[in-house]
Amino acid sequence: MTKTAVHLTEVCPRDGFQSIREWIPTDVKVKIINTLIDCGYKQIEVTSFVHPKAIPQLKDADEVLAQIKRPPGVTFRALVPNVRGLERAIHAGVHKAKLMLSASDSHSISNANCTTEQALAQFEPLIERAKDSDIEIAGSISVAFGCPYEGEVPLARLVMICERYAAFGIEEVSLADTTGMANPTQIKETVRVLKARFPQLIFTLHLHNTRGMAFANAVAGYEEGIRHFDSSTGGLGGCPYAPGASGNIASEDLIHGFEAMGIPTNVSLDAVIHAGAVIQEQLPAYIDSFILKAGKSSDLSATPTAQVKVES
Amino acid sequence: MTKTAVHLTEVCPRDGFQSIREWIPTDVKVKIINTLIDCGYKQIEVTSFVHPKAIPQLKDADEVLAQIKRPPGVTFRALVPNVRGLERAIHAGVHKAKLMLSASDSHSISNANCTTEQALAQFEPLIERAKDSDIEIAGSISVAFGCPYEGEVPLARLVMICERYAAFGIEEVSLADTTGMANPTQIKETVRVLKARFPQLIFTLHLHNTRGMAFANAVAGYEEGIRHFDSSTGGLGGCPYAPGASGNIASEDLIHGFEAMGIPTNVSLDAVIHAGAVIQEQLPAYIDSFILKAGKSSDLSATPTAQVKVES
Repeated sequence: MTKTAVHLTEVCPRDGFQSIREWIPTDVKVKIINTLIDCGYKQIEVTSFVHPKAIPQLKDADEVLAQIKRPPGVTFRALVPNVRGLERAIHAGVHKAKLMLSASDSHSISNANCTTEQALAQFEPLIERAKDSDIEIAGSISVAFGCPYEGEVPLARLVMICERYAAFGIEEVSLADTTGMANPTQIKETVRVLKARFPQLIFTLHLHNTRGMAFANAVAGYEEGIRHFDSSTGGLGGCPYAPGASGNIASEDLIHGFEAMGIPTNVSLDAVIHAGAVIQEQLPAYIDSFILKAGKSSDLSATPTAQVKVES
Repeated sequence: MTKTAVHLTEVCPRDGFQSIREWIPTDVKVKIINTLIDCGYKQIEVTSFVHPKAIPQLKDADEVLAQIKRPPGVTFRALVPNVRGLERAIHAGVHKAKLMLSASDSHSISNANCTTEQALAQFEPLIERAKDSDIEIAGSISVAFGCPYEGEVPLARLVMICERYAAFGIEEVSLADTTGMANPTQIKETVRVLKARFPQLIFTLHLHNTRGMAFANAVAGYEEGIRHFDSSTGGLGGCPYAPGASGNIASEDLIHGFEAMGIPTNVSLDAVIHAGAVIQEQLPAYIDSFILKAGKSSDLSATPTAQVKVES
């Protein structure tokens, strides 16, 4: 039986790079992004137009956009927090601006110094400004499946935020398991409710592997009809709350798993593994990928010769 | 809705220890096993009665069995390769002997210097000998979901082996994804066929996380009615084909995931995390566990104070 394909967005250049403190030179960023473009991704989250003081690593967002190649059919997405960021993104030729807010007030205050409600209110002028341009707007919800400060996030919070996004005319919402607190049962229940309530919205799952459940969560989402996933080549994008813990699900792990299940990704696994090796060469300390370590299931070993037989 | 519980067998003392070259003193093994017993496991795979030259690390199998505590209700399982191993296991007071063979001839020759058919033939005198004792016999199939030398393992091979095990009067068969080649679709299809064909057999899944799919595979198995799983505290038990790659699914990761999904394990997660810390203290280089690194989803952080606001 042919399974329907998934659409993957590569987020290493944003979520991955922003988690790294040591400065990554602009030309290295450009080289990595160009290598990722060659993998066949139709959408790449290339950077974030936040204030340079907030995330110094991404202060070169404009230069990065100016220097990467621009093949037709590839959408460049970037995070924008406000009108000023949107202006920069439009000027840099970004195709899609992703809004970011947190499902819980505690995480929102920690991350953006405002409540979820205040964040939504701040999006209004941004939405207005976007109407005068060609830029698309997508929404996202951080800590959608659990907050590291508050714990469980009521589903009603996600419904409320999606209602507001829908009222803005937004058609895509990314649900982020920012600190890897989701489990497959919860993913299924949440997706089922949101898809029934908002049939007009396209939901993306942005999964972190902090507790080893990211691929199981992706499968659960797929089984509930999710066809859009974010992932990060090399698994770049650590967990800010637990040093050394896993972050974003690695693109090569997600692609390898989906393809093994017969789910087309339309991204070249071998090209992504090559891109992972390029990233590993530049940023060896940050790689976190099963496939880069173990190889593909189809990479067979030479048949061994018989060993000396030992009796018990 | 209440979900049915799973039965976990802790295999760190066998699969974990045997993967470690440096000698683990007998008293350290005993200390770790006693700590694992305190977690609430009803079954522990404590060692292997193979020839000391085959696996020097487990040459103290008899002493380990003599020194560990023996609370009522806990089944001690051990691997036995032949009649001589079985005699030792019976003498040591093992409750259940697990037979091991490989689904593919290449892996069988590499591991046991005989074909799968030859391995089955060698089990016959062992089964006869067991009939004169109280020891239970369980079967297992290594590389059941893929062989690192041959690739795909035809389902017909698993059916053939299960038929032979069933003819021996064996009631339990462990299906091992020895090098982490399984995917959830394959797990479901395989389990569905085997359970329909052998309704009298209890199947266990023994999963390795080599390619990041172990938990997804466990969930897929559960959804097809599997209720028995092996796991290894601390994730001990590396992949012999890829140094540094992940091995056995960590018990704490499996328990954390199942419990989050509302699936009772009847093992104390906190006690397993404690046992993982004890193992980490003794064998720090071999730990591979998400939960030991990231903590439980329910371990909340202190709510942060607001940061200085930055504008883009």
